[in-house]
Amino acid sequence: MPVYKAPTRDTRFIINELLQLEQHSSLPGFENASADMIDVVVEECGKFCSEVLAPLNLSGDQEGCTRHADGTVTTPKGFKEAHAQFREAGWGTLSAPEEFGGQGMPHVLGMMAEEFISSANQAWGMYPGLTNGAVSAILVKGSPEQQAKYLPKMIANEWLGTMNLTEPHCGTDLGLIRTRAVPNADGSYAITGTKIFISAGDHDLTENIIHLVLAKTPDAPDSTKGISLFIVPKVLVNDDGSLGERNAVSCGSIEHKMGIHANATCVMNYDGAAGWMVGEENKGLAAMFIMMNAARLGVGIQGLSQAETAYQNAVKYAGERRQGRALTGPAEPNEKADTLFVHPDIRRMLMDAKAFTEGMRALCLWGALQVDLSHKAASEEERQMADDLISLLTPVIKGYGTDKGFDTCVQMQQVFGGHGFIEEWGMSQFVRDCRITQIYEGANGVQAMDLVGRKLAMQGGRAVQAFFALVDAECAAAKAKPQLEALAGQIEKANGELKAATMWLMQNGMMNPNNAGAGAHHYMHIMGIVSLGLMWLRMAELAAAKLAEGSEDKAFYEAKLVTARYFGERYTPDAGALRRKLETGGEAMMALPVEMFATA
Amino acid sequence: MPVYKAPTRDTRFIINELLQLEQHSSLPGFENASADMIDVVVEECGKFCSEVLAPLNLSGDQEGCTRHADGTVTTPKGFKEAHAQFREAGWGTLSAPEEFGGQGMPHVLGMMAEEFISSANQAWGMYPGLTNGAVSAILVKGSPEQQAKYLPKMIANEWLGTMNLTEPHCGTDLGLIRTRAVPNADGSYAITGTKIFISAGDHDLTENIIHLVLAKTPDAPDSTKGISLFIVPKVLVNDDGSLGERNAVSCGSIEHKMGIHANATCVMNYDGAAGWMVGEENKGLAAMFIMMNAARLGVGIQGLSQAETAYQNAVKYAGERRQGRALTGPAEPNEKADTLFVHPDIRRMLMDAKAFTEGMRALCLWGALQVDLSHKAASEEERQMADDLISLLTPVIKGYGTDKGFDTCVQMQQVFGGHGFIEEWGMSQFVRDCRITQIYEGANGVQAMDLVGRKLAMQGGRAVQAFFALVDAECAAAKAKPQLEALAGQIEKANGELKAATMWLMQNGMMNPNNAGAGAHHYMHIMGIVSLGLMWLRMAELAAAKLAEGSEDKAFYEAKLVTARYFGERYTPDAGALRRKLETGGEAMMALPVEMFATA
Repeated sequence: MPVYKAPTRDTRFIINELLQLEQHSSLPGFENASADMIDVVVEECGKFCSEVLAPLNLSGDQEGCTRHADGTVTTPKGFKEAHAQFREAGWGTLSAPEEFGGQGMPHVLGMMAEEFISSANQAWGMYPGLTNGAVSAILVKGSPEQQAKYLPKMIANEWLGTMNLTEPHCGTDLGLIRTRAVPNADGSYAITGTKIFISAGDHDLTENIIHLVLAKTPDAPDSTKGISLFIVPKVLVNDDGSLGERNAVSCGSIEHKMGIHANATCVMNYDGAAGWMVGEENKGLAAMFIMMNAARLGVGIQGLSQAETAYQNAVKYAGERRQGRALTGPAEPNEKADTLFVHPDIRRMLMDAKAFTEGMRALCLWGALQVDLSHKAASEEERQMADDLISLLTPVIKGYGTDKGFDTCVQMQQVFGGHGFIEEWGMSQFVRDCRITQIYEGANGVQAMDLVGRKLAMQGGRAVQAFFALVDAECAAAKAKPQLEALAGQIEKANGELKAATMWLMQNGMMNPNNAGAGAHHYMHIMGIVSLGLMWLRMAELAAAKLAEGSEDKAFYEAKLVTARYFGERYTPDAGALRRKLETGGEAMMALPVEMFATA
Repeated sequence: MPVYKAPTRDTRFIINELLQLEQHSSLPGFENASADMIDVVVEECGKFCSEVLAPLNLSGDQEGCTRHADGTVTTPKGFKEAHAQFREAGWGTLSAPEEFGGQGMPHVLGMMAEEFISSANQAWGMYPGLTNGAVSAILVKGSPEQQAKYLPKMIANEWLGTMNLTEPHCGTDLGLIRTRAVPNADGSYAITGTKIFISAGDHDLTENIIHLVLAKTPDAPDSTKGISLFIVPKVLVNDDGSLGERNAVSCGSIEHKMGIHANATCVMNYDGAAGWMVGEENKGLAAMFIMMNAARLGVGIQGLSQAETAYQNAVKYAGERRQGRALTGPAEPNEKADTLFVHPDIRRMLMDAKAFTEGMRALCLWGALQVDLSHKAASEEERQMADDLISLLTPVIKGYGTDKGFDTCVQMQQVFGGHGFIEEWGMSQFVRDCRITQIYEGANGVQAMDLVGRKLAMQGGRAVQAFFALVDAECAAAKAKPQLEALAGQIEKANGELKAATMWLMQNGMMNPNNAGAGAHHYMHIMGIVSLGLMWLRMAELAAAKLAEGSEDKAFYEAKLVTARYFGERYTPDAGALRRKLETGGEAMMALPVEMFATA
C-alpha cells in the first residue's frame, strides 16, 4: 500500500526560514504565528493527514461513491469518520476569519494544510476544499444576513459547500448557461436547470450542503453579463438556524471518471429549488471569479500534492527494488543486484521530481503569503505589489503547477516499471487523480490565455514588469556570490527568454491575437520555470548561508544546494526552446482548413 | 462512443508514394506488392479494424477479463468472435513466411496492420501481437521439428503465443530469474516457477496457447548467461499434431491494471510443466532478444496507434463542441459560439498530434521496410545499411514513439475539457492503455540505455555515422529548394545538436559512464526528433513535387506542407534544449546521498 509522510521539515524551512513569517508579526493574524507555533501546527497537521487521511486513499479509489435509488450518496468507508475528526481538530478553519469562527491565521498555513490534505487523499480533500471556494464568495459578496446564516457552519465544516458552474453544453464559455432563476414573491428565486461535473455535489459527510449556483434571471442578457450567483442549500435553513425542509435539488447520477473516484462528481438537478442571490444581479461572474481564484491556487497545490506523494513512493520503491548493477561497477557486491538508485535514469526522474516539488512548494507558500500581504500589508505599495504578483502568477501556479505535477506523477509511476501499472501499488491512482487538475477550475489552456490575454496587460504591464525586475535584481545580487553564480546566471538567462517572449507577444499579439493564443501555453511554461527558478535561487542562497554559519542540519542544506544546481542545469534550458517555438507564431498553427484535420 | 477510421489514405501515401514499395518488386515477397494490391489490402484491413475491432474497445475496457474458480479465463464479450473473423480473413498472416502458411508479404504490410489493429483495440490486438514475438523466436532458434509442430498453427492464429520473462522480483534484470527447468528422461524439461505480467497468459480465444518461457537449468550460471528458452504449450501436442493432455501451467490470477483491461495480464504458475528447449542451453537471452526486437517495434507502433485514435476523437469533438469565440472575432456569428477549432491552443494540441502521428507512421513503415531490406536486399551493403539503421532506431521507435504517443493521448484528452475525464467518452482509456507502452518490452529508460550504451558503439559507431550522413545529405539537397529551405535548415540544425550530443557522450561517457546514463533519455528524444524530421522532410519534398505536377489531391499535399512546417517550427527547437541538458552530465544527478531523497 502506498505511503505518505507530510514534508514537514521542508515546509517549516520554507515558512520559517525562507518566508520568515515572524517578520510579519505586526500584521493582523500574524501575531501568534511564531516559528514555534508554526512548527507545532505543521507537525500536527502533517500527522493528521498521514495517519487519518492517507490510509483511506487507495480504498476510497477502489470503492468509489455510491448513489442509491433514492438519490442519496454514500462516500467510501471511513470518509465520514475522518471528516468528523477533521472538523473536531479544526484543520479546515486555520486561515478562516475569526469573525465567523475561524482561527484567522495566515493563508500560508491554510495552503500548507491544503497540500498535506491533498497529498494524503485528494478525493477526500475536495469535500472541504470546495467549501473554501464557496466560503470566499459569500465572504466577499454575501449580505450580512447570508454571512451570518451560512459562514459559521461552513467554516466549521458542519456544512460543506459546492460550486455549480458547468452545464452539459458549456464549461469554459459560461455565457451559454441555461439554468434559470425566477424570482419568488418572498425575495428568493426558483432555480431550475441541470449542472454537471459538480464535485462533492452530494454526500453523507454533513447534514447540509450549500450549493453556489450560477443561473440567469428571466430578462438577463444572453452572455456572461447575464449571470447571477445563488445560494441553494440542500436543506433549507430556518431563521433560527435550524434545518427545515429538503430543497428541490438532487443528485441525478455520479459520473464514471478516470480518477478521484472517492469524490462524488454529480449531475445536479435543480427543479425549482429555492435560491438566494449573492451580490448583484448579472454580476455573478465576478463573484464566480472570487471562488475561482481561490480554487485555482488550491488546484495548483493539488498538482504539487500528487507529485509529492508519488515521489515519496517512488523513492521508497527505488530503495527496495534491486535490479541490475551500477554502470560504474557493483555498488553492493554482496547483494545479487544494486538498488534502482544506482541508475542515472532513475535518478533523473527522482531529481526532476524533487526539484519540482520543493520549488513548487516554495512558490505556493510564497504565493499564499502574497494573498495575505495583498490584504494586510502595512503600506498601499506593498499591498499592490503583492496583489500584482499573485494575480500574475495564479494561472502559472495552476497551469504550470498541474502540468508539471502530472508529468511528475507519470515519471514516478515509471520508476516502478511494470508494477507501476498495477493498481494495488497506488501509482496509477496518483496519475489518474492528478490528471483532473489540468482540467478543472479552468483547463490549462484557459489559464495560459488568462495569463497572456489578461494578466500581462493589467495596468499597462505593471505586474509583469515588477516580476522581471524582482528576478533580475535577485539574480544580479546572487551572481556576485561564487556559490550562486552559475544558478543565478541560468535563471537570469531564463528570465531573459521570458522578457523576449513578452516583447514578442506584445508586438505580434496586437497585430494578430492568434499569435498570442498560439504562444500562450509555452509562455506560461517559461514563466513557471522562471518562478521556480526564483524560489530555487532564494533557497540556495539561504542554504549556503546556513552552511556557512555551521548549521547542524548540514545534510538538509547541502541537499538543497545539489537540487538547486540540478534545477538550473535541467530545467532552465527549456525556456529557450519554448521561446523559440512561441516566436514562430500562429500562422502554421491556424493554416489548416478544418476538414483537413479529419483522418483520410 | 469513441470512433476510429483507419488512416488508409495516409498509409497508402507512405507505402506507395513515399517508400515506393513497387521499386523493390524484384525482392522475394515484394513481387505481388503492387500499388493496386497494396491499396486493396490497406483498405480492407482498415475496414476490418474499424468495423469489427473498434466497436469492442470501450466495452472490453469496461468488462475486462474474468478468471473463473477453475483457473480458466474469459475475454470480454465479442472478443472470441472477432478473433475467429480475424483468423479467417488472415490479417495475422500478412508478412509471415509462406513456408509455414503465411502470406509472405513485406513487413511493411504487417506493420500497417499492427497499427490499425492496435488503434482499433489495443487490448485485443495484444493476443495475436504477442504471438508474433513468439513466432519470430521459434522461426530463428527453433528446431525444424519445433517449427513444423508449432508454427503453422501459430501463424494461422489457431493457437496463440506468449512471452514469459518477468518474475515478481525481476523484470529488467533477467539474470535474477528463479524459474527452474529440470531435464526429463525424454529430452523435455520440467518447468517450475512463477511468471508475472504475462500478457494474454490465458484466454478463451484459442484451444491452445504456446508459452515461451525463460528458465534456468540446474547448473546454469547465476546470471543472464544462464538463461534458456523453452516452449511450454498450455495443452500438450501429440506427434500427429492433435491435442493431448493439459500441461501443468495455469493462470493464478489476473492483475488489476490501469489500462488494457481487456487483455488478461496473468500470473502464470508452472508446476513441473513439460517444456522443450528452444535453441542452445544458456543462450536464451539471445533468443529472447529476437522476440524483444520484434515486440519493441510493435510497441512503438502501439504508441502511435493510441495517439492516432485519440487524435481522431479529439478532432471530432473539436468540430462539434461550441465554446467561446475566435480571438479575431466570431467565426460563425449565427451560432451562439464558435467551434473549438478557432482556438489556437486547441489547434496547438491537434497540430502537435498530427505532426507526430503522420511523422511516426512514416518512420514505422520505413523502419519495417528496413527490416525487410536487412534480410532481402540484393547487395550485402544494402542489407547491412538497413540492418544498421533499424538496429539503431528500434529503441528510438519504441522509446520516443511511446513517450510522445502517451503525451499525445493526454493532450487529446485535454481537448475534451471535463468530458475527457469521463470514461464513457473513451479518452481516458486511450491514455490508460497507452501508458503501458512506455513500460513494457523494456521500460523507456532501458531503451535509452540500449541506444546510448549499445547501439551507438556498434561497429565503431557505423550505424549512427550512417544516420548522420543520411540526414545531412538530404538536408543539404533540400536546402537548395526554396520551398524546403526552412524545414531542411531546422532539421539540419537538430541533426547538429544530435551530433554534438553524440560527441559529448563519446568523450564524457568514457570518463564516467554515469554521464552517458544521465543523458540517455534526452539523447533518445533528440534522435526521435531528427528521425521524424527526416520523414517530414521527405514527405514535404514529395508533397511539393505532387503539387508542382498538378495532382488532383491538392488539399492532401498542401496539408502535408503545412504540417511539415509546423513540425519544423514546433518540434525541432527542443533538440537544442535537450542537448544542453545532456551536456550538464551526471554529477548533480548522482550527487545526492540516497537518504536525502527521503522526505523529511
